Amino acid sequence: MIVVLKNDVTQEQIDHLLDKTAKLGLKPHISKGVKRTVIGFIGPEDVLRVTPLEVFPGVEQVIPVLAPYKLVSREFKNDSSVVQINEKISFGGKKIPIIAGPCSVESKDGIRSIAQKVKESGATILRGGAFKPRTSPYEFQGLGEEGLKYLSAAGKEFGLATITEVMDSRDIGLICKYVDILQIGARNMQNFSLLKEVGKIEKPVVLKRGMSATIKEWLMSAEYILSNGNFNVILCERGIRTYETATRNTLDINAVAVVKQLSHLPIMVDPSHATGKWNLVESASKASVAAGCDGLMLEVHDNPENAFSDGPQSLLPETFSAVMAMLKNIAAAVSREI
Amino acid sequence: MIVVLKNDVTQEQIDHLLDKTAKLGLKPHISKGVKRTVIGFIGPEDVLRVTPLEVFPGVEQVIPVLAPYKLVSREFKNDSSVVQINEKISFGGKKIPIIAGPCSVESKDGIRSIAQKVKESGATILRGGAFKPRTSPYEFQGLGEEGLKYLSAAGKEFGLATITEVMDSRDIGLICKYVDILQIGARNMQNFSLLKEVGKIEKPVVLKRGMSATIKEWLMSAEYILSNGNFNVILCERGIRTYETATRNTLDINAVAVVKQLSHLPIMVDPSHATGKWNLVESASKASVAAGCDGLMLEVHDNPENAFSDGPQSLLPETFSAVMAMLKNIAAAVSREI
Amino acid sequence: MIVVLKNDVTQEQIDHLLDKTAKLGLKPHISKGVKRTVIGFIGPEDVLRVTPLEVFPGVEQVIPVLAPYKLVSREFKNDSSVVQINEKISFGGKKIPIIAGPCSVESKDGIRSIAQKVKESGATILRGGAFKPRTSPYEFQGLGEEGLKYLSAAGKEFGLATITEVMDSRDIGLICKYVDILQIGARNMQNFSLLKEVGKIEKPVVLKRGMSATIKEWLMSAEYILSNGNFNVILCERGIRTYETATRNTLDINAVAVVKQLSHLPIMVDPSHATGKWNLVESASKASVAAGCDGLMLEVHDNPENAFSDGPQSLLPETFSAVMAMLKNIAAAVSREI
Amino acid sequence: MIVVLKNDVTQEQIDHLLDKTAKLGLKPHISKGVKRTVIGFIGPEDVLRVTPLEVFPGVEQVIPVLAPYKLVSREFKNDSSVVQINEKISFGGKKIPIIAGPCSVESKDGIRSIAQKVKESGATILRGGAFKPRTSPYEFQGLGEEGLKYLSAAGKEFGLATITEVMDSRDIGLICKYVDILQIGARNMQNFSLLKEVGKIEKPVVLKRGMSATIKEWLMSAEYILSNGNFNVILCERGIRTYETATRNTLDINAVAVVKQLSHLPIMVDPSHATGKWNLVESASKASVAAGCDGLMLEVHDNPENAFSDGPQSLLPETFSAVMAMLKNIAAAVSREI
Repeated sequence: MIVVLKNDVTQEQIDHLLDKTAKLGLKPHISKGVKRTVIGFIGPEDVLRVTPLEVFPGVEQVIPVLAPYKLVSREFKNDSSVVQINEKISFGGKKIPIIAGPCSVESKDGIRSIAQKVKESGATILRGGAFKPRTSPYEFQGLGEEGLKYLSAAGKEFGLATITEVMDSRDIGLICKYVDILQIGARNMQNFSLLKEVGKIEKPVVLKRGMSATIKEWLMSAEYILSNGNFNVILCERGIRTYETATRNTLDINAVAVVKQLSHLPIMVDPSHATGKWNLVESASKASVAAGCDGLMLEVHDNPENAFSDGPQSLLPETFSAVMAMLKNIAAAVSREI
Repeated sequence: MIVVLKNDVTQEQIDHLLDKTAKLGLKPHISKGVKRTVIGFIGPEDVLRVTPLEVFPGVEQVIPVLAPYKLVSREFKNDSSVVQINEKISFGGKKIPIIAGPCSVESKDGIRSIAQKVKESGATILRGGAFKPRTSPYEFQGLGEEGLKYLSAAGKEFGLATITEVMDSRDIGLICKYVDILQIGARNMQNFSLLKEVGKIEKPVVLKRGMSATIKEWLMSAEYILSNGNFNVILCERGIRTYETATRNTLDINAVAVVKQLSHLPIMVDPSHATGKWNLVESASKASVAAGCDGLMLEVHDNPENAFSDGPQSLLPETFSAVMAMLKNIAAAVSREI
Repeated sequence: MIVVLKNDVTQEQIDHLLDKTAKLGLKPHISKGVKRTVIGFIGPEDVLRVTPLEVFPGVEQVIPVLAPYKLVSREFKNDSSVVQINEKISFGGKKIPIIAGPCSVESKDGIRSIAQKVKESGATILRGGAFKPRTSPYEFQGLGEEGLKYLSAAGKEFGLATITEVMDSRDIGLICKYVDILQIGARNMQNFSLLKEVGKIEKPVVLKRGMSATIKEWLMSAEYILSNGNFNVILCERGIRTYETATRNTLDINAVAVVKQLSHLPIMVDPSHATGKWNLVESASKASVAAGCDGLMLEVHDNPENAFSDGPQSLLPETFSAVMAMLKNIAAAVSREI
Repeated sequence: MIVVLKNDVTQEQIDHLLDKTAKLGLKPHISKGVKRTVIGFIGPEDVLRVTPLEVFPGVEQVIPVLAPYKLVSREFKNDSSVVQINEKISFGGKKIPIIAGPCSVESKDGIRSIAQKVKESGATILRGGAFKPRTSPYEFQGLGEEGLKYLSAAGKEFGLATITEVMDSRDIGLICKYVDILQIGARNMQNFSLLKEVGKIEKPVVLKRGMSATIKEWLMSAEYILSNGNFNVILCERGIRTYETATRNTLDINAVAVVKQLSHLPIMVDPSHATGKWNLVESASKASVAAGCDGLMLEVHDNPENAFSDGPQSLLPETFSAVMAMLKNIAAAVSREI
């Protein structure tokens, strides 16, 4: 923690600051420059972080030196984590799993039909929402447990693992009965109650980045899950909100490499939400694999004209199949496999 | 709903589109321009909204005409709503209530001491967090029910109404026992499970704008509450996330006037979060009252050096008192009262 | 300048860094913490700023301590500057000058008619563009010198000072012949060639904030003008670009107080561009005066239906007159005058 | 152009609108819905665009149907353009040219040494700034004509084409004497005077996207150049400004595919500025090639510790060489060549 003092700071103010910090067990290193005096404090970082040094008289600026996350950091664990879904599928290894399926589970036959098709093209995990976070209260809110049953049945029939979004702590138990991976959506990235609860289970959790979350905040949300005991976390970049309106979101492709530097957790990308338009998904998917992502989540629907949600960003099964073929080439070019 | 067709659309594609929309009960109005054909669809708007016309072949762009919110809109209710807190306090009338208090309830004596001081300066509602949404799992998470008890006691002793944040549906009942107003924080603005639940109670709800929520999304979140039966909603602008780092958030002062045009709901401002620095709060508070806001929420702490959270943006009681004096002048200049 | 070293930095890397910095005349203060070593460098700040310490092996992060601007800062000049336009008008004093007029000078009679009306309502400076920065090459580009003549004549006839935008270094001499104040538009805030040139004249310059410029960058652009010799600079907040689409720009009202803290230069606001809609201008203008601005610039047109540009954000003269009456009240409430 | 009327529009207001638009030669198509009346206007689009229909009484919203750009659009020219630099190098074909070199030309020997190394690794175009747009007036502003001479000489010696930035219309002639490609920097993307001037020459122009420009605005700036006669324009995505501070800019990788859909112009990427950190450049470069870009511009410096500018984002020659090897694999995977 570095404290920059104002140019007109008084000795009394400095003494007051040093007096308080001494009581907290912090050791100061003072550098007096021509224009500013700077104090570096050394000591237990958590004590430092919660002490509001900014409000002490004479203080101009407080600059933290250490990142606020611990368990998710590369310093805590230098080797990249591999999150195992089942004996065949994992995130963070050489193989890049592809999650595919509709935005919402709409019917038993619907999810079954899509499951069959995405399996044929090489997907290994089936997605489908049963509880939907919709901006409008008047839009389709999901089939609930019925949807979970259909998703689970389709996954089992075609040998696909399954993933669905959890929006409410009260649904965690129910969802765990049916699916393999829980997803925390962008809108709930800082729903700390929910994060704590999924930290108490063992199932893998995909944590989507909030619509306007910094990478640091995103890692702090992951820290909530790990610090409650669940280390099976996969981060998912899904586009951030910017001023650009040509696309639904702006895919922050830099985030893949930044997360790899800061954290040992695997990172995947959701090109469907990150673009919002099916005809941009191919380009974004290729970029993601080339950038080094550990997984992809793609919305696929065999009848987008009748989709209950996210039709415009869903691939047709035949397009998905073509995209998969190209992704295999890119994966090979970066020494990975799909 | 207006549909713009591609310049190379075929008659077959147009027929396919018209065939489908006819089945939905929609009436088309076709305008053929030199470069584009445009179809205006008339009919039940909810049907229109959930039909993904963007994915039909030959469609270039779909443009909604009507706003997606209903109950919160000025079209639904032209007169401005007045949300009554008790027989003396209301939001949306001539009088502008000031909410003041610490970020967190830290102790029985602490909240009592602050309550006394803000009351003396003219605040009518006491704030204080018992359940805190902290970015880091290692930071103070609030006193829980103990905090609610202290807040309630301090409010009663000094004749102040009380407000606290609710983060989890499971806490609603508990919180309603102790406080007068529930606050939904920025991070939970799209926690739709929580919105539905506070829609089922009768107590007033302050709905903070999400960190990067558009005004439209914010109104849609309010719509969740109203459509579940609770019309006692007060919107609260608390700054949005932008690229500017000189302040914690960017106060979107335009939002006050925009919300007044679009909605009948009262709108207040939180200058403490909207700036993040106590020495910017005065200017932002004056601007908010001049812009036409219906309430203010200000963080006040009598010992910011020892505050558990948000010390840097908290006013000292004596500064709060000076700010209140100036706000009274501004309020008078715009024919309001504080 | 503070340098944070990596946790695995070697002694050799530290020696290499200290060796290089010693040659630059910098004096190090080393603090060894448990997790990180931090070095504070003291010495000539310009040398520090241009030395890319980030690229030295073992360096994790470089944190500047001093602001990069000098002449514009409160440290350089503690008293607020007053920029004198003529014997009657100045920015930065008790009186708040109001600039009003059309976006573009469209005709001799047009600008004369508007000048008369804004003068009657209390404006003291007339605006009007002769060289227009239009997003599209197919839109009206301004009347050029003809426009300058009309503007100048209207100003003289009604006793108004005049302001117009300069877009090209080659036009500076011409513009100086006709008008009292030069405006650098948002799109040219970092047109450094142009900034240097207006730094060489003596006429006052209004420097608009770039569409997505930080306050620091804006002050650095002002520094370009001052460092070339022209201290008559007035900063103008005109809204920044954010994700919100309900308004043309987001008025960063916080910027008024932030600039006042960092710089001695006067700061004005342009509520017309900051909102983009005439019916939001009143609220934004009141907020700006209450927040402490030193001037306002408002677009006024007596026939917006036929305006060549910016019709939607222009006030009618009668609305302008009503707004002026209200602004006088707000000004009085904050001990200023209009 | 579609006009949505207010729900309380009067017949008189509609008549007034139709009367005015009839005089402009516009043909209306009226659709009366239950809640809103909508009018689609057909006619000469430029007339429509400059008529401020938003200000007519009774009008709620005006929605343009056609894009404002013409010459840059795929509708104007369906085939992708290939911009020829010389007999060997072109942008927009199968081969992806790599531009490499230092941020600034710092000395004769310096640029020569880097030129030799980037040539060996496969670059075909040499970059180097002679006129530098620096945020601070106290930083290195470039060597001017001296720098152009060194750049040109190094390019000729090693058979590399050359590119440099132009910041001022007055320098165009000089720069054209020495280099093959002119670059318009992000800060000047809307310096319309400069755009018009480079539209009058024949040399290829790289137009960088403004720091917070939408894709539409960027294409409009390109339209300025094409409409003045110069069709040799290459667009360059260089990262946009967002709230994320972990990187210098956010690479908008989606822009590559969006531009390809909207325009026939080639699009390249500058991963150095788009990330701001040398150790993120590899990932961003791979992503760009996989996404379908037509060129890359990379900052390379053989002694970043002594670089006059942009040291932190410059690759060492040996890193550049390793990155090039990997990019060749990615290019092959997407049927391109480097």
